[in-house]
Formats: sequence, structure tokens, C-alpha cells
Amino acid sequence: MPEEKRVIDLKRVLQEQLVKEGSTREASLKYAEAVFPGSMSAAIALGAPFIQAAERINAKRPDAYSTSFEHVQWLPASDPSVVRDGLTFVGHIKGFHEKFKHAPTPSLLKVPGYFKGTPHTVIGHEAEVPWPGYIEHMDYELELGYVIGKRGESLRPENALDHLFGITIFNDFSSRDRQAIEMPIQMGPTKCKDFAYGIGPWITTVDEFKDLDRIGMEVRVNGETWGKGDSSNKLWTIAELIAWASLGETIVPGDVIGSGTMGGGSALELDRRLQPGDVVEMIVEGVGTLRNTMGQPIAGLWWPEERKPFM
Amino acid sequence: MPEEKRVIDLKRVLQEQLVKEGSTREASLKYAEAVFPGSMSAAIALGAPFIQAAERINAKRPDAYSTSFEHVQWLPASDPSVVRDGLTFVGHIKGFHEKFKHAPTPSLLKVPGYFKGTPHTVIGHEAEVPWPGYIEHMDYELELGYVIGKRGESLRPENALDHLFGITIFNDFSSRDRQAIEMPIQMGPTKCKDFAYGIGPWITTVDEFKDLDRIGMEVRVNGETWGKGDSSNKLWTIAELIAWASLGETIVPGDVIGSGTMGGGSALELDRRLQPGDVVEMIVEGVGTLRNTMGQPIAGLWWPEERKPFM
Repeated sequence: MPEEKRVIDLKRVLQEQLVKEGSTREASLKYAEAVFPGSMSAAIALGAPFIQAAERINAKRPDAYSTSFEHVQWLPASDPSVVRDGLTFVGHIKGFHEKFKHAPTPSLLKVPGYFKGTPHTVIGHEAEVPWPGYIEHMDYELELGYVIGKRGESLRPENALDHLFGITIFNDFSSRDRQAIEMPIQMGPTKCKDFAYGIGPWITTVDEFKDLDRIGMEVRVNGETWGKGDSSNKLWTIAELIAWASLGETIVPGDVIGSGTMGGGSALELDRRLQPGDVVEMIVEGVGTLRNTMGQPIAGLWWPEERKPFM
Repeated sequence: MPEEKRVIDLKRVLQEQLVKEGSTREASLKYAEAVFPGSMSAAIALGAPFIQAAERINAKRPDAYSTSFEHVQWLPASDPSVVRDGLTFVGHIKGFHEKFKHAPTPSLLKVPGYFKGTPHTVIGHEAEVPWPGYIEHMDYELELGYVIGKRGESLRPENALDHLFGITIFNDFSSRDRQAIEMPIQMGPTKCKDFAYGIGPWITTVDEFKDLDRIGMEVRVNGETWGKGDSSNKLWTIAELIAWASLGETIVPGDVIGSGTMGGGSALELDRRLQPGDVVEMIVEGVGTLRNTMGQPIAGLWWPEERKPFM
């Protein structure tokens, strides 16, 4: 109930209702856990029984077992099997390449490129962002997170949107100094990205959006607007990105595919960077605000010693 | 029992033994499933109770509930949370760059680069390799698979090997034509790799190897040796690769980290390529043979339409 700034403990409401109707405590608990499992990807994988039960309970706006936002500890809005993050907004691709004064590779026009991130470092709304001490130049990336609702293999754009469950906010925290070292290897980002992916605060289901291709987006740092725009002007459609992700492999419920950064959605494009303690807020129309505070650099981590050239 | 070409159904043996000793059928089944879960990563995560029970049963070499290799359908030797694949063998890095007549990026000397693969396309011994029809130039890559035994975060090389459970064989099937399109985007491989990772036939635990840094490796195609060597001459040690993978994030039991291709461990280096129906065998000393047959190209898949330049 975002309008009322309260969350409902759906499992608890369902269980109590069943007990009132005559179920045993044990049986009702087992059933409620099956309908509202502790994992969002498991709930989405269940599908209709999960959605229908949630809608029935929400329609009654129960006061019992609801909690004010201020007392909630937020998990990531989903627990994807793997993080995928695309590059679909023309504005960011232009901004990024103008910044580094080189032409984009023709490959960007051939396929909807994306990188993959490990699923172990996703963080939720209000979580402190871990800052490994080897990172100097810290940045955010303002993105939509497309949450997959149905398993799919080798989809085509024509049917790919049937597999979209909803949209969340995706903050692809990025280290620009580590990225400059890793990217020339061409195997994709590792340490410059795999320390934190902000996913939250929740998922808005697809049916709640009027236009999936023009969603307002904004990023604020310490309350100041650093970037603002919307999700139009895409090189690849949402359907094409999802179809591509599923091509020759599998996408599963709860998977999150980042849209790629909105044009002007990184501090890099402004010649600015994040500092420890900064508060980063991403506001997405129809979803809400994902807020995270940058942690202090973690000291004493290992870093490899450079090798001598061998050819 | 690789020497006898038989596998033991450990769960079944344990359960029957418990029933003989007085446990109920139901209780014994529940216990046996906890000790020998259906997922290798779950079993490795359990640790000592799994290993000790397996060793006790194996020491007795039971005939009951053992099956000849020829009747076994092999699952992947592990079910990693994410596939990681390094680039550690000097021979392959040289071979690859000589082939394409360009110097390796200095970044290769700075960090132990790896790419990440989705966990949904791992295949086991004797599985047919899916061949998406958009792949023309198909290749194998002969690698060791380092299987993680213990959860770890930001390890240092000094303690990283404590987190190594064992070694399996890793065949990083690769499409060279798709790779040439994807790599310049610098976000890492997607469709050129994420269709099949061969992992198997099983895992040999670390204690069974005399020297982890000189393990004989060979690849045969249709019975003919195409590459042969060993796992020495590494740019980055196993400990450094594992420490790097865990840096600022988490490695979990059952994760598989590919060593990178052995020098001469791809057909690319020989100007050869795989054809549908080819049988690829990878033989690793102390482990065994991982054999896969290439499937027929899957026709009718979607491929994106190229975009017009926008800058």
C-alpha cells in the first residue's frame, strides 16, 4: 500500500484468516508459506495463486499485520537467478562515448548487448552500499529493472512481453576506475560492478503502467537532482532485450534485466562522482523511490600484483 | 567408483542401512535426503556430514544399489550459482593473440580477468550439446573446473585454497563468429557462450591430486587428439583466481570457476572447427573423461535486425 506508506504481512493475514475459518494453525501456516514464500522469485514462479491471494487481501486494506514504512527493513525487490544489465538508451550511449571521445563499436548496432552480474550482491531499499576499498571513482547508474514473470527460452520480440512481470528500480553502482582496467579484457565487468546492485523498493506490475516506453526517471544525490528524464528513445525495445536475453538459453521468474542507464543517468556524464556517506535516490514514475547510502571504504582488501609482459 | 565403472546410489544405501538398524522408512528417507540432497551444491554446502557418510559407504564398496556407467544418465557435476571462467594459461593467451595478430591488452597483466555465464545452461557428461542455429563457427575450450567447497568473501590468495573442494572438467563451448560481434561491446560474452557449459563427469576432491599445478589435459574430437598438455604455466595461480572471484563479493559452495583454456585447448588455435554430430572428449588426469556430442543446429530462432548509426 505505497499510497498509505504501509506494507501488509500477506502471509500472516492469510494464515489468520484460515485459522478463523477453521484450519489448524499448522496447516494454515504451511499453506500460507506456499502461497507467500520468503523469496520473491519463488512467489512469481508460483504465479496466479500468489497474485490472486495478494489482490484479495489488498482489496480489503487490512489494518492488522500492516506496518509503517519506517519500521520496515527492505529486502531486494527480487532475488534473480542472475543479474543481466543491458544498454538500450541512446542518450547514455552517446553521452558515454562523447565523454571518452571514441566512436561506439558497430557491434552496438548489431545486438542488444548486456553484461551479467552475480546474484549475491543485490541490495534493497535503504541498504547501505558496500564500498570495497580498491574503488576510488564511485558512480551510480539510473535504470529500470525489468522483472521476469514466466520462464522462457528463445522467445521472439512478438511474445517476449508476456514474460514481463513488472518493473522495479535498478541502481547499477559502478566503479569507473576499476571499469577502465577490466573492460579492455572484453570478458565483461567483474569487480567494477559485482559489489552492489540496488533493486527496489518494490515491483510495480505491468498492468499498472500506462506507457511502458515513457516512464519518468530521476536521480538525486543528497537531495539535489543530478539527472532527470524518461525511458523513451531506446535503441532496442523492452521486448527485444527480453527476447535476446532468452535466446538459446533460459530466463526464469524473478530474473531482473536492467534497461541500461538512462541518458544523463550516471554522474560520469556530469564529471561528478559519489563520496562515502552520499545518499542516492532514484525516483521512477509508477514505482517509487529507491534510496541507498554509500558506505565507508572497506580497507585492507587484497589486490593482485601486476604481472610482467610475456609476449 | 570410477575404477569399477559403477556409481553408488548413496542415498539409497544409507536409507536401507538405517531401516536395517531400526529407523522407520519415512524417518530414514528424510535423513538420507538431508545427507545426500539432489543438488551437488547443497551437498557440498552441508560439508562434513555429506563427505563422511559418502566415505563410510564407499569404503564398503556395496554392490547393492550400484549401477554400471552405461546405465547412468549424468547430471552436470555441479549446479553452480553462477558460472565464472578465467583466463590463466599463458599458452592460450599467446595462441589466441597470435592468431588474431594483436597484442594482449595490458589489463590482462593487471587482474585475473574472467567472464560470467548463466547457470541455466550447464550440461553433464554424455549430454548432447544444444547448437543454436545462429552459430556457424563452433568451438570447444579445454579447461579445469575449480569447484568451491566453502562460502567465502574477499579472500586472500593465502587462504583461498581452503575454499577449493575439488576439480572437474569444464568445456566452455564457444561460438567464434558470435564472439567476434559481442566482445567489442566489452560487456562480456552472452550468446557466444551461454548456450552450453559442459561440467563433469564428476568432481575429484582436492586431496586426491599430487600436484594441482601440473594436471595432464587432452581433448579428442571423434577419437582424434586435437590438443594435449597440462595445467602448468599459469599467469595467475588457482589461489589468486579464487581470491579474485571472491573479492568484494561472495563465492558459494558448488560454484565452478573455469581455469581458462589450456594452451592449444581450442580448435581455433588449429584453424579447425566443430561440426554437428562431432564427439568431443576431454580427458583430465585424476578426473576422467567428459564426453559430449554436438547436436544439430536449431533452426528458426530470432536474430535482431541491425540498427542504423545514431552518432
